[in-house]
Amino acid sequence: MRQTAAYRADQPGDHLTLGTIERRDLRPDDVAVRVTHCGVCHTDLHTLRGTDPDAFPVVPGHEFVGVVTATGTDVGGFAVGDPVAVGNIVDSCGACAMCRAGQENYCAEFPTLTYGGRDRVDGTPTLGAYSAEHVVREDFVYRRPAHLDPAGVAPLMCAGVTVWEPLRRWEAGPGQRVGVVGIGGLGHLAVKLAAALGAEVTVFTTSADKVDDARRLGATHVVVSTDPDQMRRAAQSLDLVVDTVAVEHDLEPYLAVLDLDGTLCSVGHLGPVSVETMALLVGRKSLSSSGSGGRPRTQELLDFCGEHGITADVEVVPSADVDRALERLARNDVRYRFVLDLSDLPD
Amino acid sequence: MRQTAAYRADQPGDHLTLGTIERRDLRPDDVAVRVTHCGVCHTDLHTLRGTDPDAFPVVPGHEFVGVVTATGTDVGGFAVGDPVAVGNIVDSCGACAMCRAGQENYCAEFPTLTYGGRDRVDGTPTLGAYSAEHVVREDFVYRRPAHLDPAGVAPLMCAGVTVWEPLRRWEAGPGQRVGVVGIGGLGHLAVKLAAALGAEVTVFTTSADKVDDARRLGATHVVVSTDPDQMRRAAQSLDLVVDTVAVEHDLEPYLAVLDLDGTLCSVGHLGPVSVETMALLVGRKSLSSSGSGGRPRTQELLDFCGEHGITADVEVVPSADVDRALERLARNDVRYRFVLDLSDLPD
Repeated sequence: MRQTAAYRADQPGDHLTLGTIERRDLRPDDVAVRVTHCGVCHTDLHTLRGTDPDAFPVVPGHEFVGVVTATGTDVGGFAVGDPVAVGNIVDSCGACAMCRAGQENYCAEFPTLTYGGRDRVDGTPTLGAYSAEHVVREDFVYRRPAHLDPAGVAPLMCAGVTVWEPLRRWEAGPGQRVGVVGIGGLGHLAVKLAAALGAEVTVFTTSADKVDDARRLGATHVVVSTDPDQMRRAAQSLDLVVDTVAVEHDLEPYLAVLDLDGTLCSVGHLGPVSVETMALLVGRKSLSSSGSGGRPRTQELLDFCGEHGITADVEVVPSADVDRALERLARNDVRYRFVLDLSDLPD
Repeated sequence: MRQTAAYRADQPGDHLTLGTIERRDLRPDDVAVRVTHCGVCHTDLHTLRGTDPDAFPVVPGHEFVGVVTATGTDVGGFAVGDPVAVGNIVDSCGACAMCRAGQENYCAEFPTLTYGGRDRVDGTPTLGAYSAEHVVREDFVYRRPAHLDPAGVAPLMCAGVTVWEPLRRWEAGPGQRVGVVGIGGLGHLAVKLAAALGAEVTVFTTSADKVDDARRLGATHVVVSTDPDQMRRAAQSLDLVVDTVAVEHDLEPYLAVLDLDGTLCSVGHLGPVSVETMALLVGRKSLSSSGSGGRPRTQELLDFCGEHGITADVEVVPSADVDRALERLARNDVRYRFVLDLSDLPD
């Protein structure tokens, strides 16, 4: 087994502490990655604040970048020194209809998560990338455009692909009017990506102080969603709304801003949703949801961002500041994603 | 004003009685239609059993066929003797985005319903087609294929177009797998139309005794939805489900039978709907609804049915039996639509 430095919590309520964990020796199809940067996702916070002792120990981190340091004997796509990125899935069955369709995120056997999952081969719990090294199956390692700031690439791997998939599924592009609800880790990337795809972007935010920022990110229109007049003026004006709000909220105002045959895709919140049928019927609107991304669109996103020079707006912090970053994230005090600099850990 | 025989109810709880009502004198863009057949829709039942006295008097009937008997001075598309059909909308603003898109059913000023609405010109209440004559704006009168049984055409105008719109919106056709939930007035037409469009059709029914009928209508697969094994085997097998069930019911079993990017379109029931986000997220499924139809697709449906020889399966009853038909409809004792023969009324 390989040893690597990592931030871990051993039971519910624990702070993260730096220690040593084991990574598996490379299988023929494995790639070892020296992690340099890892985004701090809301999921990390939820997991650490969870109350199930069986879910621990936890090493969070599922949107990371780094450099290949070793490859298994059968690895053909990567070589030592390659810049790479990994997201929140590190394996899947590969055989079900969803995997065959390139939607490993919906694998019938449930995809193996980058942390908090179980390795499909040896059954050991997976540990995340708040760490100096990760070992990942080649199929779930992605080529990273070397000219992009690596810290800004890390959040593309979870926040980015989560909004990229609905933008691509509903064909955001020239002539399309796309709304983005909430300007946080997911939302700010949705705005950048939708604008780069050529769509006309409208941002909905409760924070009047984010209006200028929304425009800078690429929005043509900004609607302060707490202002009924602004919401009324936005009625029936959009083809797709990507709703990134992480807490339960009324969806009907965002159905009302859809035009004929429009879709509201919720990517930020899990739980029950309830709407009046009439809110869907008039204008034949659709309510949908989407989570994470499959392999083809993950690589496609990285290639697209490479071409268009897109990265996340990040606040990079030394890895030792991880607890403070998590505390600030819990208060939404970040524009727009914390990224841990893990290059400061010993190899 | 013109006088015509009609079945009307003057207040909540009244039975329908045959009497005389007035129709307006023809405006330049009006067409007078001698009604020969009118379908008996669930809406008729709900309206008659309503408790709001202000909604009365009621003459029901909003899916009918007949022959043109007179035309206004500006009417160019119809002549006396033409076989025609009319649905549940007889006017709309014509100027809003929905009307301009050919979706008068979603008119921003609300479309003028064939009964229970208010005429846009003179403000009088509209009275339906359980009647010997109706007067309708030319734009909402449709060419009816003369070789089709007129009684079987009448239900196409409400039940038919209500399922035709989602089938066309979601592109039912060769290679598409379409589910139809419920085999009643709407459902049996959805099966015929989806099959004629070339889709592979799966019927979901609670009635094991409708299995043979579903196959006769064009279904390739029939799932008895009360059988958990059959439902499990149908998991993730469809691209579109048109749900025609008229009462509140759990939608998640019908989301579970959708494959990646599939849509569940509810056309039978109004009211609040509630689902778990996860039921949408896994497979990126959509929940939608649709109501009635716009002008272009209404004529398209009639033309399609003319080409393919499609009519509703109807039980034609003398108009004097209307109350008995409504009572049987309330018990779902009809395969699959009652149609009143109104040719028996005096001109």
